[in-house]
Amino acid sequence: MKLAILGSAGMIGQELLDQLSQTSAPLSIEKLITCDRAPTPVPAVLKACTIEVVGTVSDPDAINAVLQHRPDCIIHLASIVSGEAETDFEKGYTVNFDATYALLETIRGLNSREGYHPRFIFASSIAVFGPPFPAILDDDFHLAPRTSYGTQKAMQELLVNDYTRRGFIDGLSLRLPTICVRPGKANLAASSFFSNIIREPLAGKEAILPVDESLRHWFASPQTAAGFFVHAIGLDLSQIDHRRALSMPGVSATVGEQIAALEQVAGARAVGLIRKQIDPVIEGIVTGWAPNFTAARALALGFTADRDFVVIVQQHLSRN
Amino acid sequence: MKLAILGSAGMIGQELLDQLSQTSAPLSIEKLITCDRAPTPVPAVLKACTIEVVGTVSDPDAINAVLQHRPDCIIHLASIVSGEAETDFEKGYTVNFDATYALLETIRGLNSREGYHPRFIFASSIAVFGPPFPAILDDDFHLAPRTSYGTQKAMQELLVNDYTRRGFIDGLSLRLPTICVRPGKANLAASSFFSNIIREPLAGKEAILPVDESLRHWFASPQTAAGFFVHAIGLDLSQIDHRRALSMPGVSATVGEQIAALEQVAGARAVGLIRKQIDPVIEGIVTGWAPNFTAARALALGFTADRDFVVIVQQHLSRN
Repeated sequence: MKLAILGSAGMIGQELLDQLSQTSAPLSIEKLITCDRAPTPVPAVLKACTIEVVGTVSDPDAINAVLQHRPDCIIHLASIVSGEAETDFEKGYTVNFDATYALLETIRGLNSREGYHPRFIFASSIAVFGPPFPAILDDDFHLAPRTSYGTQKAMQELLVNDYTRRGFIDGLSLRLPTICVRPGKANLAASSFFSNIIREPLAGKEAILPVDESLRHWFASPQTAAGFFVHAIGLDLSQIDHRRALSMPGVSATVGEQIAALEQVAGARAVGLIRKQIDPVIEGIVTGWAPNFTAARALALGFTADRDFVVIVQQHLSRN
Repeated sequence: MKLAILGSAGMIGQELLDQLSQTSAPLSIEKLITCDRAPTPVPAVLKACTIEVVGTVSDPDAINAVLQHRPDCIIHLASIVSGEAETDFEKGYTVNFDATYALLETIRGLNSREGYHPRFIFASSIAVFGPPFPAILDDDFHLAPRTSYGTQKAMQELLVNDYTRRGFIDGLSLRLPTICVRPGKANLAASSFFSNIIREPLAGKEAILPVDESLRHWFASPQTAAGFFVHAIGLDLSQIDHRRALSMPGVSATVGEQIAALEQVAGARAVGLIRKQIDPVIEGIVTGWAPNFTAARALALGFTADRDFVVIVQQHLSRN
C-alpha cells in the first residue's frame, strides 16, 4: 500500500514509523510519503520506499506533492499544540483547521475527477470535550471544547464525518488520550507535569507536582497511541456508520495512582524526587479535563489500551 | 439599540420583524439593519429607522455594509436549506459555513482594532444531532449530524462558542425545532408533510401523509421560534459558561397527535382530507430525526415552548 503521514517528524509520527519498520508489521508498504515542516527521520528498513516532502500542511505545494502519489491511506497528525493554539489564535485556526479543510477539498476534487477515495485517519483529541463531566464519558457525550485547539479538532472531526458520508474519503478520527510518558524535556504546557513526575524521577531528577493527587485523567503511552493508527490503517470500517470519531481506549488514573505505579517500578527513592507545590493556575486548567471514558465503540473495533499505569511506566523505561 | 438581521426576508426573519414592530415590544430599536439577497419587507413602524442591505452573507460588501453600523446585536438567520445543502455540496459549505467564518473573522478584526463586541445570535438547528437517539435528548447529547446542513450548523456553533470564549463576540446559538406550521405552499422537502397535513386540510385541500402516525418529532411554531430570538436579544448571559449552543424548547408530538390536534381545532372533516400513502424514502429520512428534548438549559434561561400542538394549529389558523 501507499501510505502518507502528515506530521511524520512529531512524537506520534516517529513512534508510528518505528512500529511500521518492525519486521513483524502486518502491513506491506510499497511507498511511504512523509511530510513535515522539518526533515523526517525514517528507519533504515523503510528508507528505500520513502518519498520525503518537507513543508507544512498549510502549504498547497506540500499537499500536492503528497497527493500526487495518490496514497491509499493518509494519516494526518500535523497540528500545533493546545497551548500555542490558545496564545496564537490565527495560527491555530490556520494550521489546525483551514489546512485540513483545504486538504479535504483537494481530495474531493480528485474524487470527482478520478474517483480517488483514500482512507483518511485523523488524530483528534479528548480536548473536544469540556466540563462539566460525568464520572465516565460514554460515546454519546457532547462536544463542548473549552480551548481553541479542542474547537479545531471538533470541527475537523465533523468534516471527516461529512466527507466520509458523502463518499469523498473513508475517514476515521481517533480521539487520543493524553500521551504519557512523553519523551524529551519538561516543558511549560499545563499537561506537562503528568509526564514530568514519571520521566524526571526515573532519570534521577526532581519534578514538581502542581496539583492534588486526587486529580483523575485519561492516558495512553506513545507506543499505544501510535498503535491505534497502525490498527486503523487496515480496519474494516464497512460495519460502522457515519459517526467516524472514536474516543480511544486509555488508562484512567489519579495522580496518586501514577505515583504508586512509579514507586512499584522504581521504588520509594524515585517518588521522593517529586516535590508537591500546588499551582492554582495549572490546577484550574487541568480540572477541566476528562477523567474517564467507556471507549465502547473503539474497544468493539479492536483498539486496545495499555493494561494499567505500571505498564505505561515500564514502557517508558524500556525505551529511554 | 442597533440591531442587524441577516436573512431578514426569510420566514423567521419576517416573523421576527413583525414581533419587533408590535407596540408592546420590549426593545427600543434606534437602528435596524436588514440584509438578505432579496429586498426585505419591513413593517411600517420600523421603516424610518431601517437601513436595507441587499446581498448574501457570502458577499463581503454586504457584510461590510452591515458591520459599518456596528450593530449591538447581530441575528444570523441566513442559510440555505437542508435539502439544497445536500444536493449542492459546495454551495452548502460556502453559504452555511464559509460565510459565517468570514463574518466572525471580520468582527474579530473590529474587536482587536476598536473593541467592537456585539451580541451574536445564530440560528442553529436540531439537525446537529443524528441517530441512534435515546427517547429524550438531554443537553449533553453528542453532535453527530447525518446531513451536510447539520454538519455546517454544528461547525458554526463551535465557532460561536470559541469566538465568545475568546472575547470577540457575545454569542449564542439557538437550535430550532422543526418549524410547524410553515406558511406558504407545500413543497418537496422531506419535512414538508409535517406542515402540509395541517395547513392543507385547514384550507380545505387534500394532503398526503407519507409516514406512520407513530412517528414522533420536535416542533415549534414560527411565532414561538421568532420569539426565541426576541428573548435572546436582551438575555443576561453573564451566568452561562462557554457552552453557548442551546437546544430550544418545543413540543414533542407524534404524527397521530398532530392529527388529533387538527381534529380538535377543525373537526373530522379536515382530518378526512389527509390521505395516507407511505413513502419509504421519506420515512427512511425522517425516522433519523430527533423525537424529544429536555431543553433544560434553555428553559432555565426563560425560553418557552408552545403549550401543545393544539396551540400550534390555532396559531397558524389565527394568522393565515
